[in-house]
Amino acid sequence: MRSRRVFNYGAGPAMLPAAIMQQAREEFLDWHDTGMSVVEMSHRGKSFLSIAEQAEAGLRALLGVPPDYCVLFLQGGATSQFGMVPLNLAPGGASADYLCTGHWSAKAAQEAQRLCKVNLVCGAGDQPLRAVPPPAAWQRDAAAAYLYYTENETIGGLEFHAVPDAGATPLVCDMTSSLLSHPLDVARFGVIFASAQKNFGPSGLVLVIARRDLLGRAPKNIPSLLDYAVHDKNGSMLNTPPTFSWYMAGLAFRWIAAEGGVEEMERRALARSGLIYSCIDAGDFYRNPVDPEFRSRMNVPFTIADESLHDRFLEEARAEGLVDLKGHRAVGGLRASLYNGMPQDGAEVLVDFMQQFQRRHG
Amino acid sequence: MRSRRVFNYGAGPAMLPAAIMQQAREEFLDWHDTGMSVVEMSHRGKSFLSIAEQAEAGLRALLGVPPDYCVLFLQGGATSQFGMVPLNLAPGGASADYLCTGHWSAKAAQEAQRLCKVNLVCGAGDQPLRAVPPPAAWQRDAAAAYLYYTENETIGGLEFHAVPDAGATPLVCDMTSSLLSHPLDVARFGVIFASAQKNFGPSGLVLVIARRDLLGRAPKNIPSLLDYAVHDKNGSMLNTPPTFSWYMAGLAFRWIAAEGGVEEMERRALARSGLIYSCIDAGDFYRNPVDPEFRSRMNVPFTIADESLHDRFLEEARAEGLVDLKGHRAVGGLRASLYNGMPQDGAEVLVDFMQQFQRRHG
Repeated sequence: MRSRRVFNYGAGPAMLPAAIMQQAREEFLDWHDTGMSVVEMSHRGKSFLSIAEQAEAGLRALLGVPPDYCVLFLQGGATSQFGMVPLNLAPGGASADYLCTGHWSAKAAQEAQRLCKVNLVCGAGDQPLRAVPPPAAWQRDAAAAYLYYTENETIGGLEFHAVPDAGATPLVCDMTSSLLSHPLDVARFGVIFASAQKNFGPSGLVLVIARRDLLGRAPKNIPSLLDYAVHDKNGSMLNTPPTFSWYMAGLAFRWIAAEGGVEEMERRALARSGLIYSCIDAGDFYRNPVDPEFRSRMNVPFTIADESLHDRFLEEARAEGLVDLKGHRAVGGLRASLYNGMPQDGAEVLVDFMQQFQRRHG
Repeated sequence: MRSRRVFNYGAGPAMLPAAIMQQAREEFLDWHDTGMSVVEMSHRGKSFLSIAEQAEAGLRALLGVPPDYCVLFLQGGATSQFGMVPLNLAPGGASADYLCTGHWSAKAAQEAQRLCKVNLVCGAGDQPLRAVPPPAAWQRDAAAAYLYYTENETIGGLEFHAVPDAGATPLVCDMTSSLLSHPLDVARFGVIFASAQKNFGPSGLVLVIARRDLLGRAPKNIPSLLDYAVHDKNGSMLNTPPTFSWYMAGLAFRWIAAEGGVEEMERRALARSGLIYSCIDAGDFYRNPVDPEFRSRMNVPFTIADESLHDRFLEEARAEGLVDLKGHRAVGGLRASLYNGMPQDGAEVLVDFMQQFQRRHG
């Protein structure tokens, strides 16, 4: 227990920029002299509509979202999208291509198997890969309605740093842990989705960016909340949206723009993760299994050669205010998650700690 | 624009108790000396798990939820439940009975028609009823998998003040706008659901209370997030839950208990709404169309005999800090919503204003 702010390296919900946390606190009881909190206002009133519209405009500006794409602010997290993508894009027994590179893409493929035909283009089960297999080794289905991949695997620490070439097939990407951490050519994609709680907000919100001409083909015998076209038609307000998370995401979008946009977020992500990887690669004490070409800038999983030291590492780190460094239970070890809300300081003090720990126990 | 706190009579998201808003603000940047905000902490860490468990325990204690019922904290609002109820309780072409008493029960029946056979027990379309038809007039389907009703119609201002007798058929109730505003015998129900943003929290959270023996029959070719049994098995954490709304709901549950429980909430709801109805019934200036036996304690829709005065009423009320009194666009007129977060003062100043307005314009 400590009363100062800690560095939280958890995989999400994650640290948010201190400036937007302060702002949210300051206006929590009375938003812009309306005499009420954002959490207490009607989603259909002028105040919240302005919050919602500014958030969407902010996101569109940050990523240069083309006008023929809708931006939806939905509930249900990325897991809801594991189901909505096949229901909307591969209805009526169509098939879809899945690049399986680790835990989250395997989960998405598994969910899609309930709803459409799934072709595994690469990978086997949910074992984390150390590198993305070269496209020449991919087993594509020519009839696939879309090609799906997970840009960043938070557990394995594997990240695509280039957009795969899907040819004429619509590309669908789970960017839950990487959206807004780098520039993006949205026009390359059919559907992009990302839940908020890594890079841009509290949990309870999932963003969907979808090319409108792909929508409107969902079957009528599914719940209407699962149809992208219904949400697009209703401006993400078919029913009451997650207003506080939407508002906080809007603050995050404005903060990112003020700090220099997604180009600056990428520069910072490279700087933060680069520091940690350099420390790992400097000797044999720490290890990261991923091919340097595909290492994640968002989640750095690592182990200590002497695995019996993991618990002590966590304990001593916690005593220094460095928390949630435990690796995912599926792979064990350690992990530092470094999203947009993590300041450079957070990478520096972690590296200092890692070096000291190595000196004490190496 | 005003800097003092206003009384907000909107139908939701709605005013929350001032005490819990203050508390949420005070611990927004640093929850219980953890050095992080509730919105920044892992849903699987000790801190949030304690928040989640205490919230569930608080709700169970308030309503005396029997142990063979699960309590789920989900996303998607009541509208998500309009679909999940038939998918889980009436799979494979089964039929279900719907009591249609207004807008929200009609919406629920309409959504269910996408997913199962629907029998309208009473009512016609989404026209608000002035009274619940007597059970002798109900056209039940003996084979129905459940009997569905909406305890409180927020638009028509019609509320059931007794639980209908469903015989051996499981009873399903949308209590979005009435849960925690009165004592409840949960054992009478198969499934109860309520989104948070009326009586106990911010939007983005929907509570489901379900008898466990009814679960586990959802088909396997639907998204797993639509299966109650999957959520029950995973303690509402199949994926990242809406953590901040869950936390705020927990604060509201504790506040309700400290104030005297749901018995006290009912006493206050009767006192608040009784004041408004007395003012309406005192003359011919204001009108409410609902049979007094079924008048809602949560939402009081009313009109002024001279309808041209509605806009002036809204304008003058707003100038006094009494906001969001406009009736739903489907029925027009005026409406005062009076949920748990509305203090008695809010009813008193509204009645004072109504009387003054009547003197000025009557």
